Amino acid sequence: MDIETLIAKIEPPDEAAVQAARRRQDRLTKPRGSLGHLEDLSVRIAGITGQPRPHIRHKVITVMAGDHGIAAEGVSAYPQEVTAQMVLNFLSGGAAINVLARHAGARVIVVDMGVSADLPQLPGLIDRKVARGTQNIAAGPAMTAGQARQALESGAGVVLAELEKGLDILATGDMGIGNTTPSAAVAAALIGCPAEDVTGRGTGVDEQGYRRKLSAVKRALEINHPDPQNGLDVLEKVGGFEIGGLAGAILAAAAHRKPIVVDGFISTAAAMLAASLAPQAAAYLIAGHCSREQGHRRMMDWLGVHPLLDLEMRLGEGTGAALAFSLVEAACKLLDEMATFDEAGVSERSTE
Amino acid sequence: MDIETLIAKIEPPDEAAVQAARRRQDRLTKPRGSLGHLEDLSVRIAGITGQPRPHIRHKVITVMAGDHGIAAEGVSAYPQEVTAQMVLNFLSGGAAINVLARHAGARVIVVDMGVSADLPQLPGLIDRKVARGTQNIAAGPAMTAGQARQALESGAGVVLAELEKGLDILATGDMGIGNTTPSAAVAAALIGCPAEDVTGRGTGVDEQGYRRKLSAVKRALEINHPDPQNGLDVLEKVGGFEIGGLAGAILAAAAHRKPIVVDGFISTAAAMLAASLAPQAAAYLIAGHCSREQGHRRMMDWLGVHPLLDLEMRLGEGTGAALAFSLVEAACKLLDEMATFDEAGVSERSTE
Repeated sequence: MDIETLIAKIEPPDEAAVQAARRRQDRLTKPRGSLGHLEDLSVRIAGITGQPRPHIRHKVITVMAGDHGIAAEGVSAYPQEVTAQMVLNFLSGGAAINVLARHAGARVIVVDMGVSADLPQLPGLIDRKVARGTQNIAAGPAMTAGQARQALESGAGVVLAELEKGLDILATGDMGIGNTTPSAAVAAALIGCPAEDVTGRGTGVDEQGYRRKLSAVKRALEINHPDPQNGLDVLEKVGGFEIGGLAGAILAAAAHRKPIVVDGFISTAAAMLAASLAPQAAAYLIAGHCSREQGHRRMMDWLGVHPLLDLEMRLGEGTGAALAFSLVEAACKLLDEMATFDEAGVSERSTE
Repeated sequence: MDIETLIAKIEPPDEAAVQAARRRQDRLTKPRGSLGHLEDLSVRIAGITGQPRPHIRHKVITVMAGDHGIAAEGVSAYPQEVTAQMVLNFLSGGAAINVLARHAGARVIVVDMGVSADLPQLPGLIDRKVARGTQNIAAGPAMTAGQARQALESGAGVVLAELEKGLDILATGDMGIGNTTPSAAVAAALIGCPAEDVTGRGTGVDEQGYRRKLSAVKRALEINHPDPQNGLDVLEKVGGFEIGGLAGAILAAAAHRKPIVVDGFISTAAAMLAASLAPQAAAYLIAGHCSREQGHRRMMDWLGVHPLLDLEMRLGEGTGAALAFSLVEAACKLLDEMATFDEAGVSERSTE
């Protein structure tokens, strides 16, 4: 399905379901508002799904992997080969995201969007490789316009296929050595802020590495002039294949009224691209957590989302989003399963 | 078991288990520190349990209920009868804590520590009633010294009995109309701060109600002169039966090397009493969440704990602690189940 068709399918939340959920929340045996953000979250999920008492059964985490030409500039603490090695770790179940997916009862979908290695054909690995890594964004565009579109549509296609197997909620995850650098460039381009505001230390570069990284983000923006009004152009100029894939996945989920739990820095850059292409998609986003990475909070503010967790994590892979699944499910179950004042025979406020 | 014997049993965390867990964390396939607070949490649980790779299976939430003479001063938005009604709601499974316990796979233990009603003998209700509510702390002590000791020892006894059925982690929960008022008095007494700093709106009293509540806390402190060096005296003078019961439950869990996830405002007041009686118990405490109630963060600072969640909740019952169970389990599973760099064949940092 082409990306314009998908975007045209994204509708606003279901206002009737929102109202019904809000009315029920206010009748449950607790002081109004005492479940804090979980109340609003349950009402939002009602609007997203169109169900006044939504149920979440099938949980999917899509981890998209890609490599980055900018890694040659020494912007990461890890060598590029780690991207492919971690993809194999995901497939054998030993990575953090595998542990958290098992804990959440979710399935992990591993997608090669553009790893710079010939990965073996392995069960569970979805091959949507656009190319073996992007070009160096500090020297020119990350990819061609055709590759940008291919990344978006491939990512969307992964979610469309999963919908047929059952998908009630999607979490986004990423793997790609060096990918906080293009993510920072995407964020700076869309927000229109200085590179410093959204460039952090990623997996933990030292001071020299940080200076190289900041310089790379600045050069990427200066050389490529991404158009902040055009998400496709931003992806082409300074993005990445896994970032584009995740943006496409988000659009596909939103088009099918599925809530999307966004992970950290890279996933949020992808969500910004999705919201730039389809502003109405923002209503489907749930921020899983606040990353420790510099600028992440500012990016969430731009999207208008508030993170559920703040555990100083900075791993990616979808780990923050997978942890947040438990809170999203809890919010829906509270709305659905709690007794009302009438049902439980509990007295209401004496003052009001 | 008398409370002094229990306190004498509480040992410091197991340093060898702490070191072993820390070494393993640093070998897992992720940048060091990238799992943020979850890494420290897993290491703390190792120290608490004495297991380098701790497993959490049996999860218990003890909800202790009691009434408060101070309710007569109009400090709550709800009538006192709601305490007993909510106990029945807990037993029939319709309250928020029931939903969250089912979600977490935990069992709920409902204890009548001092409800001001004759509750029917119902399956699942543990009767440890010290009296039908405390006395009005704005006019004199909440209870006698004997009742304070009885509350602590009864609460401890509940946990000792649960240990025999299987208990790997304990969450504390409370129910008691008006109980943010004695909790505020306990906190102000132990911290030595003005009543204003730790007195909030509880379930949501209006401005007049808030002024009555603040006045009640101030009078309770002035009239009773609780001794901040003596937790038993603070409990007797300005506490509550469920608060004392929870403090005893915490001491019993700590004495048996079980981690305790502390819920919000009332549970934290109980944890402060426990730490006042046995400073070494503080090492066993995990702050489940930050309540929206005024002063809760200050109380956690006094205890030296950092909350896992901050969702603007203010319900009590153990709801914030039950939600945090998922994070504590996730932290332990990550430590136990993730592959190391060697096992996964992943390259380590190129810089360092």
